[in-house]
Amino acid sequence: MQQTALAGTGVLLTGTTPLLANNFNSNKTIMKENIKSKGYAAFDATGTLKPWEFERRPVGDNDILIDIKFASICHSDIHQMKGHWGPQQYPQIPGHEIVGIVEAVGKNVTKFKIGDRAGVGCMVDSCMECDSCMHGEEHFCEKGETVFTYGYPEASSPTGISQGGYASNIVVRDHFAVHIPEHISLQEAAPLLCAGITTYSPLMKAQFKIGDKVGVAGIGGLGHLAIKLAVSKGAEVYAFTTSPGKVADIKSWGVKEVIVVDESFGSMNVFAKKLDYMICTIPYQFNSAPYIACVKPNGHFTYVGMPNGFELTFSNINLAATRVNFNASLIGGIPETQEVVHYCADNGIRPDIQMISAEQINDAWEKVVNKEARYRYVIDAATF
Amino acid sequence: MQQTALAGTGVLLTGTTPLLANNFNSNKTIMKENIKSKGYAAFDATGTLKPWEFERRPVGDNDILIDIKFASICHSDIHQMKGHWGPQQYPQIPGHEIVGIVEAVGKNVTKFKIGDRAGVGCMVDSCMECDSCMHGEEHFCEKGETVFTYGYPEASSPTGISQGGYASNIVVRDHFAVHIPEHISLQEAAPLLCAGITTYSPLMKAQFKIGDKVGVAGIGGLGHLAIKLAVSKGAEVYAFTTSPGKVADIKSWGVKEVIVVDESFGSMNVFAKKLDYMICTIPYQFNSAPYIACVKPNGHFTYVGMPNGFELTFSNINLAATRVNFNASLIGGIPETQEVVHYCADNGIRPDIQMISAEQINDAWEKVVNKEARYRYVIDAATF
Repeated sequence: MQQTALAGTGVLLTGTTPLLANNFNSNKTIMKENIKSKGYAAFDATGTLKPWEFERRPVGDNDILIDIKFASICHSDIHQMKGHWGPQQYPQIPGHEIVGIVEAVGKNVTKFKIGDRAGVGCMVDSCMECDSCMHGEEHFCEKGETVFTYGYPEASSPTGISQGGYASNIVVRDHFAVHIPEHISLQEAAPLLCAGITTYSPLMKAQFKIGDKVGVAGIGGLGHLAIKLAVSKGAEVYAFTTSPGKVADIKSWGVKEVIVVDESFGSMNVFAKKLDYMICTIPYQFNSAPYIACVKPNGHFTYVGMPNGFELTFSNINLAATRVNFNASLIGGIPETQEVVHYCADNGIRPDIQMISAEQINDAWEKVVNKEARYRYVIDAATF
Repeated sequence: MQQTALAGTGVLLTGTTPLLANNFNSNKTIMKENIKSKGYAAFDATGTLKPWEFERRPVGDNDILIDIKFASICHSDIHQMKGHWGPQQYPQIPGHEIVGIVEAVGKNVTKFKIGDRAGVGCMVDSCMECDSCMHGEEHFCEKGETVFTYGYPEASSPTGISQGGYASNIVVRDHFAVHIPEHISLQEAAPLLCAGITTYSPLMKAQFKIGDKVGVAGIGGLGHLAIKLAVSKGAEVYAFTTSPGKVADIKSWGVKEVIVVDESFGSMNVFAKKLDYMICTIPYQFNSAPYIACVKPNGHFTYVGMPNGFELTFSNINLAATRVNFNASLIGGIPETQEVVHYCADNGIRPDIQMISAEQINDAWEKVVNKEARYRYVIDAATF
């Protein structure tokens, strides 16, 4: 444990603050005993969140303890808690867009020191030995040992599963936390940990050129960051939304055009074969055919939404007629997560956020489902 | 009309044969009056075929009349006649793997002369003016005027729809027929017109290199030609079949390995991420996840099967985890259809065929559905 290092970084804590801001844990025991935490958990597939006190594992030699300051709400939180992707173990704390201050570090940790600003995204561990893990694709651990941030079996966790970030603190292997630079606020950095990396990774892989026409379908938490990233990287961006009320916001982000899509899909016809690339974030089953048809023959279409059951039904004759390559993308690796945080911090890319307290989470979830979020709810962890 | 040209090519007809082998049409009227034809048609969505006499349009200035010698059976014939892809107009003659001898040519035709060996595949007309049509992608006519070989609205047809090749003759715009060289038998050329081009086109587009590992899933009419084409082009081919009885045949075609797939998909596990490319011909809804998982990350998977309703449901999380690009492919253009016929003729690639007479068609269809075809049924058109 390197808690003594705090002496040098104490500027982030007031002079008289105990080493552990979270008063119900003693700094003498956190490397040996479970760490108390409190947050908001789902208790069944209704997905209604309620306060819950639980325990994290002790800080291991390669772990850091983060005093969570903010956690933002991803549609995936809702999907998973409600069992849309399969049955869950409850109670379960959601949240994989997590930012805070490093409060303790294990004895082997060199990546962080106490007082550092740190973020945690969608995963908290993996084998760290296979080719994928060694090359920054920990989410594709070839031993299948990726531990996603909540609800995954994790022997070291007192609850038997990983518990997410709607909580006062988190213990995580140092490799799986990223640095949050000083020139972006913690609350604005939070959504980058999932929404940011999930759109940044496929956008970078698409290797579009400056001036290429990039479509973004589904303008919520992910989509609005996809727009800002693609605009920043020089694309001519076309945004497709089913919410007329979002048009003014979207235009303010520098897109070339906003297309409001209704049930007839008629407004999309003129875009047939016009786009070099399209990324789609729609988080439920949808008629993909008119969207895919907007991409030029032999172009690529990336779907990052994960509908109920992870299933999507599509028209193979449409795919054949459009000659579009359809792929999906799952978050991104840790190095690339760090990269998108730096890129956004450095280039003035900020999510549009709405701050809420813990007791507003259930209401916020309903608004996310109803497409009323503008565009990411960020929970103030001081209210847990 | 250039019927006089027959004098110079009469070697294909006996000296005393009338100009029109099909005796119930007069050579004096075929450019002005409808042409009698007979074949086997479906009369309703049961898909039971029965003899039917019908009429073709007169031979237009850009048309040729082909005396059909052979037509082979494609699973698509069955799908369409049974209404799997939508409601049909009946009676309807299926068949889009058609070979025969040119019997008459319109006055503007220079591509063929009477007596030429000719083949017709999956389409018989298009606008011939748009970018796609002008660049050998007539199946993607941008005006939507591609006329597929049977069951498509066609004003010039006396029945109002195109009628296919399970018949004694066909009238087709010259551009949509291809030459069948002398060094391949007509009956062996027939399956190339759909099964051949449908697999050749995506295989060429995949641009695999010599020694690359290419998977072929679904070893029926299309799959067995995909194997032979990929082997011929230098790929190391892995064949995936659910029919243990096909293994010996498949091995004889030069594959590296045959994988017999059962309901557990267990035999496929060792091929995870091993293939550079995969083409799948399975003509019904299937669990695509274990197949897609065989392709290396960032590789491509082409699905040429067209299930009921053209619909395929897939797992987006699997697609994300594999990082495979999924695409579909629809036949191929006329220049490429001519190319595959030449390639097969020149390189000794021959489909495995079984000759049948017209009255055996219904039985053969049942065998195709039951995976009992080995591997393409060819109908002797003399028996219509």
